[in-house]
Amino acid sequence: HVFWKERTQHNPLVLEVCVDSVASAAQAQQGGADRLELCCALSEGGLTPTVGLAKAVVCAVSIPVFALVRPRAGDFLFSEAEVQIMVDDIEALRACGIQGFVIGALNADGDVDTAAMKKLLAACGPLPVTFHRAFDMVRDMRAALATLGTAFGANRVQRVLTSGGRATALEGAPVICSLAATAREHGITLMAGGGVSEHNAQRIASEAGVVEVHCSARASVDSAMGFRNTAVHMGAGLFPPEFSHKRASAPRVQAIKHALSAAE
Amino acid sequence: HVFWKERTQHNPLVLEVCVDSVASAAQAQQGGADRLELCCALSEGGLTPTVGLAKAVVCAVSIPVFALVRPRAGDFLFSEAEVQIMVDDIEALRACGIQGFVIGALNADGDVDTAAMKKLLAACGPLPVTFHRAFDMVRDMRAALATLGTAFGANRVQRVLTSGGRATALEGAPVICSLAATAREHGITLMAGGGVSEHNAQRIASEAGVVEVHCSARASVDSAMGFRNTAVHMGAGLFPPEFSHKRASAPRVQAIKHALSAAE
Amino acid sequence: HVFWKERTQHNPLVLEVCVDSVASAAQAQQGGADRLELCCALSEGGLTPTVGLAKAVVCAVSIPVFALVRPRAGDFLFSEAEVQIMVDDIEALRACGIQGFVIGALNADGDVDTAAMKKLLAACGPLPVTFHRAFDMVRDMRAALATLGTAFGANRVQRVLTSGGRATALEGAPVICSLAATAREHGITLMAGGGVSEHNAQRIASEAGVVEVHCSARASVDSAMGFRNTAVHMGAGLFPPEFSHKRASAPRVQAIKHALSAAE
Amino acid sequence: HVFWKERTQHNPLVLEVCVDSVASAAQAQQGGADRLELCCALSEGGLTPTVGLAKAVVCAVSIPVFALVRPRAGDFLFSEAEVQIMVDDIEALRACGIQGFVIGALNADGDVDTAAMKKLLAACGPLPVTFHRAFDMVRDMRAALATLGTAFGANRVQRVLTSGGRATALEGAPVICSLAATAREHGITLMAGGGVSEHNAQRIASEAGVVEVHCSARASVDSAMGFRNTAVHMGAGLFPPEFSHKRASAPRVQAIKHALSAAE
Repeated sequence: HVFWKERTQHNPLVLEVCVDSVASAAQAQQGGADRLELCCALSEGGLTPTVGLAKAVVCAVSIPVFALVRPRAGDFLFSEAEVQIMVDDIEALRACGIQGFVIGALNADGDVDTAAMKKLLAACGPLPVTFHRAFDMVRDMRAALATLGTAFGANRVQRVLTSGGRATALEGAPVICSLAATAREHGITLMAGGGVSEHNAQRIASEAGVVEVHCSARASVDSAMGFRNTAVHMGAGLFPPEFSHKRASAPRVQAIKHALSAAE
Repeated sequence: HVFWKERTQHNPLVLEVCVDSVASAAQAQQGGADRLELCCALSEGGLTPTVGLAKAVVCAVSIPVFALVRPRAGDFLFSEAEVQIMVDDIEALRACGIQGFVIGALNADGDVDTAAMKKLLAACGPLPVTFHRAFDMVRDMRAALATLGTAFGANRVQRVLTSGGRATALEGAPVICSLAATAREHGITLMAGGGVSEHNAQRIASEAGVVEVHCSARASVDSAMGFRNTAVHMGAGLFPPEFSHKRASAPRVQAIKHALSAAE
Repeated sequence: HVFWKERTQHNPLVLEVCVDSVASAAQAQQGGADRLELCCALSEGGLTPTVGLAKAVVCAVSIPVFALVRPRAGDFLFSEAEVQIMVDDIEALRACGIQGFVIGALNADGDVDTAAMKKLLAACGPLPVTFHRAFDMVRDMRAALATLGTAFGANRVQRVLTSGGRATALEGAPVICSLAATAREHGITLMAGGGVSEHNAQRIASEAGVVEVHCSARASVDSAMGFRNTAVHMGAGLFPPEFSHKRASAPRVQAIKHALSAAE
Repeated sequence: HVFWKERTQHNPLVLEVCVDSVASAAQAQQGGADRLELCCALSEGGLTPTVGLAKAVVCAVSIPVFALVRPRAGDFLFSEAEVQIMVDDIEALRACGIQGFVIGALNADGDVDTAAMKKLLAACGPLPVTFHRAFDMVRDMRAALATLGTAFGANRVQRVLTSGGRATALEGAPVICSLAATAREHGITLMAGGGVSEHNAQRIASEAGVVEVHCSARASVDSAMGFRNTAVHMGAGLFPPEFSHKRASAPRVQAIKHALSAAE
């Protein structure tokens, strides 16, 4: 990974692009991405890519390709069986030439699941490792950084991808900024991700105080199908809930008033 | 509206809360809202409230209640028949004690539809008027502010609600800030709205440079129903599209790289 | 309502079309609808229309127009304030020439809320009344039919709109069919609605054994806007849940096996 | 596959359960499933499972496990690179003990892509093959059955999974039934799938005239996480479109009237 390290020395701001197809990978490299995070099913937040996709993408680009390892959508509390699936997938992906991994596991209290992480890290061997946005679901971000920096040996987890525990990195930028000292102390690079676009990337990097940014930079591409049956949906729909309303909350109004008073 | 104007003089930051029920209206006032925007169907972005709801909310709170007037979701290009529906609804809502209106109409080119606006403004009579987030769909925001400030008489449209043409007010804050001088020149107050929360309200007010902020400050409230049939959905579902992919875009990656280089 | 009654005598199958705009109302009449259900916000399952919309639609068509009265999406357990809002809206809509109402209210146990219904029925005066799909959320459909047929006087509630307690009328057709005798006993007409299309209308009518069918018969119409800002969403998004998975259920697999064994 | 063939001889109705986790696989077998379709990302309609998941599921159950091979959501028009990814994934999955494959590819005109299919079938070797719901997107279902039955050798594609080109198998049951003779002529088994539940399985089997049914039989399972950050969504949201309305369509109303007249 000499090429990539040299690059980042000359250009202190690293852009990782998350892709789920060969076409996206090629576009990302062409646009100047420094690194790829490879996954499938971005609409679910990303799942482990197959070996077929991994081989094709590793072959198609010259920049480093890290693979996301996440066996399903939903929470990050993984069963024994799911941890073993991730271990097996890591081994299969290493054989495809993947150059790094993006992993994460929590326990039910919202702390890093160190037992699961040790198994995943053992499977990753010497390859670089990023802890993914499971970080945004932890109970205590500072404690999680300490765990990631110390529980597995120094510099074993080099990087954390985070939106600061908020819906987007722009929303969470002040939180990310507040974590900088703790991250540095533990030798961990914070990479800001979640809703990054050409309109907000500069603000996010600056307000979050990070040197790495993660985006998917996607545009909608119309299908090349001439014949279209629009009566069929392959994916599952999302339906508005029948048994919960949204209601204005006096405490939230008060909190917003209070936040505003700080702006005056 | 003396009460309300006095209030805003003492507290330069005004908080408008958007509500679609009596319960939300009461919560909003209790939390310290300075003004309500009343609508129905917030999940569609808000539609015109009924007279029943308007009477109940006007009766339930002492702060000013402005009514949104929007006959359907979707674009802001309204037919003759739809403009007449809005005129009739404005008249009916005035009879309920509504103290201001929130309206907007565009033509197909993305400019303010001055002919429609004149009819709506005539129906509003002397009541204060806000131009709603149709503003975020205009082709040229500066031109739209000039139209709103001059085409209907000075100070006829006092306020514009905007997210700066972006998905949220936090995203659009720099754009809103860039409009401040033009708005001031035309005697128009910019109110920032779209995704405002207790976590970002202060940043938005400060980065957008506004003195009015609009939020809904809602929390999910579980239904009080004991018996629940979960097999039925009353609302329409949203389905992932079958005939458009999302693909990484080299120009977007490049634009994000470029934006980041400005941060260094 | 003589015109409408005569019509249904000559054509035993009545088609009600649910509309939320003047344009839809005109299309529905032109296509041969026998009656309209007027509402706003069909994407939420329909809410009370405004008086502006009611006047315009009553004026635009010659077939009977019934108004849906539902102050918000979600459950059908209404507060005192919400019942009063519905009463006020019924009165305002009667003044617009609306010829019938579509109402419904449940208590927390999933039974018809007779106290609320009495207030709503009083407001409806002599106009015909349909009980809406709140019926699909009741605990016991036969008991609900008995309540609707007896608690408010004979023939006060003439009609029940239902999908048989399932997601669509096609799914619920056997359930609707099983309710026919009870409905007839109480002088109530069952109208099948929920996902009715040109492809399934005949099957639904036949398998449900009904003489009235309800549909919206909508097609997507592209906006006439030339300028489009696609960065902004006015409506709220739906997000996949993070804290619930879907998992195959052994009892459900078994139940499906059992159902299939009946088909052999 | 002797076990499975014997079983289906004794029980003419075969139930295939689609699963995307080891837990679902175990539940499906326990409930009496005759065969599994293994995939990941069911919320996208299913994508190719990883080798880690395939090994775990093959190990966990004794019934046959077929793997879905689909590299991404959206249409079924696959590039050369995507076909090669599927070929590589088929080979990797065969090495995991997968006992059959579920594949499909179309060209832009909506016909079966025979060139792509030949490559995929070659990779499948002697294993049984099902053509998946790409079938529901074809231009001409009878022509597609003929292609599947003749273009690759007799009995090479044994089975087609279909909802009859409609949103659900219940909706499409009459269409499936109308295809039975053509399917039989080409030695292809039709398997009905799409929205199958314990409430409709018997009707679907009977009205579609099929001997195989496909379902996922899932129930929501609450996360075991104690700590929950509800401010973050990992998956992408779906938003209502701003630039298309739904409007009642006179031709559709007329078509529904016409369909109903056939029921009288």
